[in-house]
Amino acid sequence: MAVATQSLEELCINSIRFLAIDAIEKAKSGHPGLPMGAAPMGFVLWDRFMRFNPKNPKWFNRDRFILSAGHGCMLQYALLYLTGYDSVTIDDIKQFRQWQSKTPGHPENFETAGVEVTTGPLGQGIANAVGLAMAEAHLAAKFNKPDAKIVDHYTYVILGDGCNMEGVSAEACSFAGHQGLGKLIALYDDNHISIDGSTDVAFTEDVSKRFEAYGWHVLHVENGNTDLDSLAKAIEAAKAVTDKPSMIKVTTIIGYGSPNKQNTAGIHGAALGTEEVALTRKQLNWEYEPFVLPEDALNHMRKAVERGASYEAEWNQAFADYKAKYPQEAAEFERYISGKLPDGWDQVLPSYTPADKASPTRKHSENCLNKLAPVILELIGGSADLTHSNLTEIKGFGDFQKNQYQNRNVHFGVREHGMGAICNGMALHGSGLIPYGATFLIFTDYMRAAIRLSALSEAGVIWVMTHDSIGQGEDGPTHQPVETLASLRAIPNLTVIRPADGNECSGAYKVAITKAKQNAPTLLAFTRQAVPNLAGTSAENVAKGAYVLVDCQGTPDIILIGTGSEVNLCVTAAEKLTAEGNKVRVVSMPSTDLFDAQDAAYKDSVLPASVTKRLSVEAGSSFGWHKYVGIEGDTVSIDTFGASAPGGVCMEKFGFSVDNVLAKAKALLG
Amino acid sequence: MAVATQSLEELCINSIRFLAIDAIEKAKSGHPGLPMGAAPMGFVLWDRFMRFNPKNPKWFNRDRFILSAGHGCMLQYALLYLTGYDSVTIDDIKQFRQWQSKTPGHPENFETAGVEVTTGPLGQGIANAVGLAMAEAHLAAKFNKPDAKIVDHYTYVILGDGCNMEGVSAEACSFAGHQGLGKLIALYDDNHISIDGSTDVAFTEDVSKRFEAYGWHVLHVENGNTDLDSLAKAIEAAKAVTDKPSMIKVTTIIGYGSPNKQNTAGIHGAALGTEEVALTRKQLNWEYEPFVLPEDALNHMRKAVERGASYEAEWNQAFADYKAKYPQEAAEFERYISGKLPDGWDQVLPSYTPADKASPTRKHSENCLNKLAPVILELIGGSADLTHSNLTEIKGFGDFQKNQYQNRNVHFGVREHGMGAICNGMALHGSGLIPYGATFLIFTDYMRAAIRLSALSEAGVIWVMTHDSIGQGEDGPTHQPVETLASLRAIPNLTVIRPADGNECSGAYKVAITKAKQNAPTLLAFTRQAVPNLAGTSAENVAKGAYVLVDCQGTPDIILIGTGSEVNLCVTAAEKLTAEGNKVRVVSMPSTDLFDAQDAAYKDSVLPASVTKRLSVEAGSSFGWHKYVGIEGDTVSIDTFGASAPGGVCMEKFGFSVDNVLAKAKALLG
Repeated sequence: MAVATQSLEELCINSIRFLAIDAIEKAKSGHPGLPMGAAPMGFVLWDRFMRFNPKNPKWFNRDRFILSAGHGCMLQYALLYLTGYDSVTIDDIKQFRQWQSKTPGHPENFETAGVEVTTGPLGQGIANAVGLAMAEAHLAAKFNKPDAKIVDHYTYVILGDGCNMEGVSAEACSFAGHQGLGKLIALYDDNHISIDGSTDVAFTEDVSKRFEAYGWHVLHVENGNTDLDSLAKAIEAAKAVTDKPSMIKVTTIIGYGSPNKQNTAGIHGAALGTEEVALTRKQLNWEYEPFVLPEDALNHMRKAVERGASYEAEWNQAFADYKAKYPQEAAEFERYISGKLPDGWDQVLPSYTPADKASPTRKHSENCLNKLAPVILELIGGSADLTHSNLTEIKGFGDFQKNQYQNRNVHFGVREHGMGAICNGMALHGSGLIPYGATFLIFTDYMRAAIRLSALSEAGVIWVMTHDSIGQGEDGPTHQPVETLASLRAIPNLTVIRPADGNECSGAYKVAITKAKQNAPTLLAFTRQAVPNLAGTSAENVAKGAYVLVDCQGTPDIILIGTGSEVNLCVTAAEKLTAEGNKVRVVSMPSTDLFDAQDAAYKDSVLPASVTKRLSVEAGSSFGWHKYVGIEGDTVSIDTFGASAPGGVCMEKFGFSVDNVLAKAKALLG
Repeated sequence: MAVATQSLEELCINSIRFLAIDAIEKAKSGHPGLPMGAAPMGFVLWDRFMRFNPKNPKWFNRDRFILSAGHGCMLQYALLYLTGYDSVTIDDIKQFRQWQSKTPGHPENFETAGVEVTTGPLGQGIANAVGLAMAEAHLAAKFNKPDAKIVDHYTYVILGDGCNMEGVSAEACSFAGHQGLGKLIALYDDNHISIDGSTDVAFTEDVSKRFEAYGWHVLHVENGNTDLDSLAKAIEAAKAVTDKPSMIKVTTIIGYGSPNKQNTAGIHGAALGTEEVALTRKQLNWEYEPFVLPEDALNHMRKAVERGASYEAEWNQAFADYKAKYPQEAAEFERYISGKLPDGWDQVLPSYTPADKASPTRKHSENCLNKLAPVILELIGGSADLTHSNLTEIKGFGDFQKNQYQNRNVHFGVREHGMGAICNGMALHGSGLIPYGATFLIFTDYMRAAIRLSALSEAGVIWVMTHDSIGQGEDGPTHQPVETLASLRAIPNLTVIRPADGNECSGAYKVAITKAKQNAPTLLAFTRQAVPNLAGTSAENVAKGAYVLVDCQGTPDIILIGTGSEVNLCVTAAEKLTAEGNKVRVVSMPSTDLFDAQDAAYKDSVLPASVTKRLSVEAGSSFGWHKYVGIEGDTVSIDTFGASAPGGVCMEKFGFSVDNVLAKAKALLG
């Protein structure tokens, strides 16, 4: 019997390996290489170090585990199953990668309890982990007391060569080093193989030295395949260094145990095949049928359930003590965790009348943020080095820096993609924090993968994007969004709002904050340039996505649909058209997404099917607008790149003028 | 007089500084900090090292100069003006950042001769430079002979802290180190200031150590403000190391010379203001009026014209000798440079009939690439570590690696963004190379900024994107494009093609290759899964964007519009609908961009205005489709994220089935 020849630890490790091998074999699809090679580090980490409660995956003070190399998800599913999570049963593992299974092809936090973030797109997980570690550091600094540490956990990551090649991980790890996030511990599965073969073909840098350059504490486990004690010692050493994040390079053999495929790209992303599975069983002395595990291994791993219950019980007691001593802080902490907003929070949002002076909507955004910040203390964020252009500083709340983690203004540096993934991580810490990240709208292109993941993985982030059109001006076409709004509106589950003035900005923040607490991201697009406050705009109506701002008697001859800085062009044009005897309606449409979500009756009340003469006016691409204006309608839009010139000149030259709106409207009216 | 107190070199350097100061002052907008601080390195580089011909900015063998910190463009415009380029006159400098000027707010290669690539979005320039250096290395390895070096130039870059924070530069620089690109020399303007203030707030890593970790040769000039000799020595030393790229950290003071604003973020991106300009004049002992320069300085710098003419003359002679000795190679070289394709190149593209077996379109792509590669030798590229999934290997042409630069298969590593910017650089080398870069379609999100820049900066790149829908299958929603096609179609000047079968794939490559030579990028979207070869598909018709694939007698009752893998669903549905007595047209629309570019008559012939019952069928978002189906039409589309399951299951569950097409068509038919 195999059992006789294997230690209990080997049995556990091989249980992980064969769960992966067999699930992937059954699915005929998946990535066995990483789980086979990283099983020892996964085992040591989960068995000897990680504090979690399988029966309450959301227990607040759990250590967070991120599999940044998400393709190796069978490692995580195996660990979840073995340690007794209810979310992954042996039947779920048999359903690996099948329709509606709990074991999708990459880890999805919204599908599987115990999975903290959604990984797969490489580099995101390690960057999310930086966000998780920041959330921990922030909450610890805020809530812990000298005699009561109620926030106190590690963030562990397993990442691979692929993650380490991606720029997003470089950005986030440089930032983590700067911040000295000592409770972030990354295990780098250094297996020298990526899909194209040996890393020798593309990736020969000295990764350890690079992390040292970032200011990380770097360790090396030379034999990650069998040397469990070295693995444990390295993790101990990593924990002992509290002022730097730690990166443990763990040299492994990908697909360890497969006699013909280990250490090849062939085992990275494909099932082993019947024959090689059999040979691997032989090699690893594994006599169990597929999905059958040695009882000793399962019993041992399942001790996590008891441990977890006691960790949580301990913490509950500690929190009860804390609550007794610090009732106010405890109440605030409980509110954070509950996801509830403070009562009346939205009352602080300003309102405006046309008498208020014209102002850039980014300035209104600044006002909203600064009104909200003292009320919603869980609001934390900043800009990718454009703080005073994006106007995202929340005054009086200090800079989040090493050993100043209680502060709330984050300087992300010129690291848009890293910022995006870090914000996602902060949101997915699940502690009620509302992170926001800011840059110029055009540079959403740098962080699009992270924005998409916020939408997919239900991360309640607010994306604050300024300089939202060619009105940006002199910086020119590299900095002027044209197609950007369209490209973002196309992302499912992301609400994009482009407010027209102060009232709509307040409404935009009301939606964004509310949605953040519902675990949905919102992207706000603000102008660089001043726009007037319009009569009839409404914070409340923003939630409907579009509403009638100016109307006529009876059925309109034409509907002008504007967004953001172009709504006022529509209003002025409408006045002139009306004076000339036309019946004109102006619709302000700050959010196509929110409008699409309204019921048919409301939509028809704003855009009646009978009115086919419709003109959209937006300083952006026409792409997507035919849904609202139809084939018979027209758009005032820009379908080329912009140009470098003062913003007003750009707007005029590219047709965003009352005259051009009038000309196009009249052409439609015939 | 100031002249008396300043050396000629100081006069030149201050000329650069004050051109920047005064142009920015006049424009009331711009970034004086970098040009003021980096003027010495710019001067030393352009005056003592760079080989270029101002009167022929496109002279092939010129050293390439990239200002990766593109916001500092006045540095480059000043150098172009001072060294005698016709593209930038003093009047152009006075028109800095104005409508249709030659001196836009960031350097744009398509506006200003002498500007090699379009920079501004940070990190792109240094990554482009890696591509330029690769192009040089490739052509040198291919064309040079032991007795004749006709390709032999450096690629110089000035980059800043911002560039060094961006992940795209990290990816590209890691790759450049791997490739040992010895003729790439980067000067890092280490001024410790970014927009948010001191780099202490966000960027405290050891950049030099990081570059050493990448395998670069790293140098430091401690006083980049006045120590010209050290600058020169460092550049000499960089040139002397031929097997590694060099990074020279040049410590400078941003805004050098401004008594109150130097070394502050205040001088990074705003005009100095009248008073500070006056104080800076005093500080730097500069008594010249705005836009007036000391003649000595101008005369000295203008020697570049004579030098340049002689460099080019020398090279012309060398090339004439080469041509005499190696007429065949010379003819090929001249063809490359001319941008012409070899005669009959498109004859190699395969054609198919419905009898040919169903095949994934990525497989057709592989065939096209491998048919084209032996004919179009300037085709060079590869994948971001998905070579055998993207099927982009061109067989028999070797791997581009250090000292194997003649080869044509590039392993970019898991570095999509870096790959994108590198491909742009290769294309913008202007030597006729057609670079291609490949990954999964979803991961265009990682490299979108580079794709956009290919379109903006007229880089003839082919983007080869596979796994183009939820048909991707088991990898799940993180890997399944939904909104991706829409988001790419929205980019101006980018042609997106999603072919339906083998013939359309051939047509897609015909368009892509042709456009590459016209300096326009094309993005090709291919399936993972097999699709049948359809009757009536046509390579030629792809260029029209859409065409009638199946038609009826008279006016159709309904038009089904399909793309890619869904065209065959339309064909089958049309057969059934026709059998039931309906008049049905099927339009295959591989490219909305190309269709939009057709004349109205053609468009109306494909989609007659009179037919309003239209149904689009595409395994992607409905976003953008109403332009073709109208408000009265409908779409078979997916506006949510996908799911992990076998591809066929995903397609069926999300409604991409003949049954669902039929159901939706019948609903339209009423």
